Amino acid sequence: MSLTNHQILLASRPQGEPTTDNFRLVETPVPELEAGQVLVRHHYLSLDPYMRGRMNDGKSYAQPQPLDAVMIGGTVGEVVASRNGNFNVGDHVVGMGGWQEYAVVDATQRGVLQKVDTRHVPLSAYLGAVGMPGVTGWYGLVKIIDPKEGETVVVSAASGAVGSVVGQLAKARGCRVVGLAGGPDKCAYVTDELGFDACIDYRQFPDLKSLSGALKVACPKGIDGYFENVGGVILDAVMLRANAFSRVAMCGMIAGYNGEPMPMANPALILVNRMKIEGFIVSEHMNVWPEALKELGAGVATGQIKFRESVAQGIASAPEAFLGLLKGKNFGKQLVKLV
Amino acid sequence: MSLTNHQILLASRPQGEPTTDNFRLVETPVPELEAGQVLVRHHYLSLDPYMRGRMNDGKSYAQPQPLDAVMIGGTVGEVVASRNGNFNVGDHVVGMGGWQEYAVVDATQRGVLQKVDTRHVPLSAYLGAVGMPGVTGWYGLVKIIDPKEGETVVVSAASGAVGSVVGQLAKARGCRVVGLAGGPDKCAYVTDELGFDACIDYRQFPDLKSLSGALKVACPKGIDGYFENVGGVILDAVMLRANAFSRVAMCGMIAGYNGEPMPMANPALILVNRMKIEGFIVSEHMNVWPEALKELGAGVATGQIKFRESVAQGIASAPEAFLGLLKGKNFGKQLVKLV
Repeated sequence: MSLTNHQILLASRPQGEPTTDNFRLVETPVPELEAGQVLVRHHYLSLDPYMRGRMNDGKSYAQPQPLDAVMIGGTVGEVVASRNGNFNVGDHVVGMGGWQEYAVVDATQRGVLQKVDTRHVPLSAYLGAVGMPGVTGWYGLVKIIDPKEGETVVVSAASGAVGSVVGQLAKARGCRVVGLAGGPDKCAYVTDELGFDACIDYRQFPDLKSLSGALKVACPKGIDGYFENVGGVILDAVMLRANAFSRVAMCGMIAGYNGEPMPMANPALILVNRMKIEGFIVSEHMNVWPEALKELGAGVATGQIKFRESVAQGIASAPEAFLGLLKGKNFGKQLVKLV
Repeated sequence: MSLTNHQILLASRPQGEPTTDNFRLVETPVPELEAGQVLVRHHYLSLDPYMRGRMNDGKSYAQPQPLDAVMIGGTVGEVVASRNGNFNVGDHVVGMGGWQEYAVVDATQRGVLQKVDTRHVPLSAYLGAVGMPGVTGWYGLVKIIDPKEGETVVVSAASGAVGSVVGQLAKARGCRVVGLAGGPDKCAYVTDELGFDACIDYRQFPDLKSLSGALKVACPKGIDGYFENVGGVILDAVMLRANAFSRVAMCGMIAGYNGEPMPMANPALILVNRMKIEGFIVSEHMNVWPEALKELGAGVATGQIKFRESVAQGIASAPEAFLGLLKGKNFGKQLVKLV
């Protein structure tokens, strides 16, 4: 059997905003398996904001994505051939298979491939609410914001893979939860489907003063916790409404990935409000994953945690879908369906 | 016996930089004591940067200083008359007596007046290393930065009342300690007397790039903890050299007290470096004071914690001395001697 793989490579590093020219689609034969290896056919590829950072080669928390190599990315799929005793054909697995249809995985390394149970949780959810984005939301909310019942938690990118989890977990903990999202459709989804108490369409409030005013209305008792997914003027506006001893979990700052300056207007408010602002990368906190995934998996299985997906079709559509994600064109978790 | 008191009142709120015109010296008779009251003759008044914030009437962590009232401030002195069984004439006490020569204190309120022991610690030190500034340094270092042996800790305003304590406590914990101070005299004091490993004269490095370069030389293994006393370009430069999981304790931002904008250039570094930045006000953490004062008092009594004082003479000199403090003209803890 000779299989053909389609892959997306990083062709060049973006100067400012990335374009489809930064990517290249190639066709390659799938190699024969060696001992210990597993061949995974990918069902879904996950597209996530962190990938934008990897396209740069400046200092960051992770190594840059190498040029002319397959773009990194989380994947779920099915084992279609195995020379490893721990994996059987037909197993559903999650891993970091990259932007390609098939991946040959050396499954002797612990943790590179995880079997998942699709009886109660759909396979794609392991890339979203029950995967890295879900654990990201869980960690920021539970370990940094640590909300008390009755507190007010604000979530940017509220309809997205991370934000939707943050808000639903905060509601379950008895908080008032206010989202920020772009456009009336996303805002309606955030309140009507996800159950947030309010959602602000930030496009209606493009400057600090108006956004701060909208937050004042939506958060009459101030803001105790903020899950930062965006950066820029939203963070500035939240800081103006922050209560004493408020906490900010910072896990993404899309607004700054393209290298444009994105200052914080008034850091003295950190002192004035005795705030704590903490950045984190969820892959550095593997010890919490079991606890987080248990809550998230149970939430999805029982329907208490809802989520939504934007699904692009076919590997060739990945670059366009990724550029759309960076502009907020997705609605919910952005996936690429590969089968 | 009829005593005359001299007091400094807040005459007007500053527009931008304060001037001596914002203060007014008045003469008033000391009233007769009522039951439960104590009359304290102040030996020293403490001048501290936080007072600048109180002169404004915008939102802050504390109530504004009222107009035409005695300026608030910490004081040490001696009980000269008492109608309270817990205090005897001759007792040395620390309190918030304000900018005046005498204070009538209702000592029935718990905690407004503390007796202090001057056998091993000089009276004035209870306004500095063994008082609010010392506990401020202790809290930020021990409770927020929480340094490990071998880590690098950077301290701004290193020759001041707070910074000098931070650095000496960090040295005692086995850290590499780098100070920032204004001018060669202060820098020499910080390294030669206080025992810091290095001290950067920030006046020699007035822009982000040069200051960041100086920090790179002084901190070859990067920065793990930063005690923020100043704000502005120094914080930006530290963030460029911050290690993963570094911690910033923020207790003062003199640079912004006059209302001028003082943005943080690149808050995305909080995420890139997975930093924690936390603002605090030491008066909100009274539970740690006993532990902190025990270490600080022992350190001063044994000579392990050194400190320096700038002493202005007489209550009339307080406004000028305070304005100098805001410009860094003091060298060590700024006091006003009143006897």
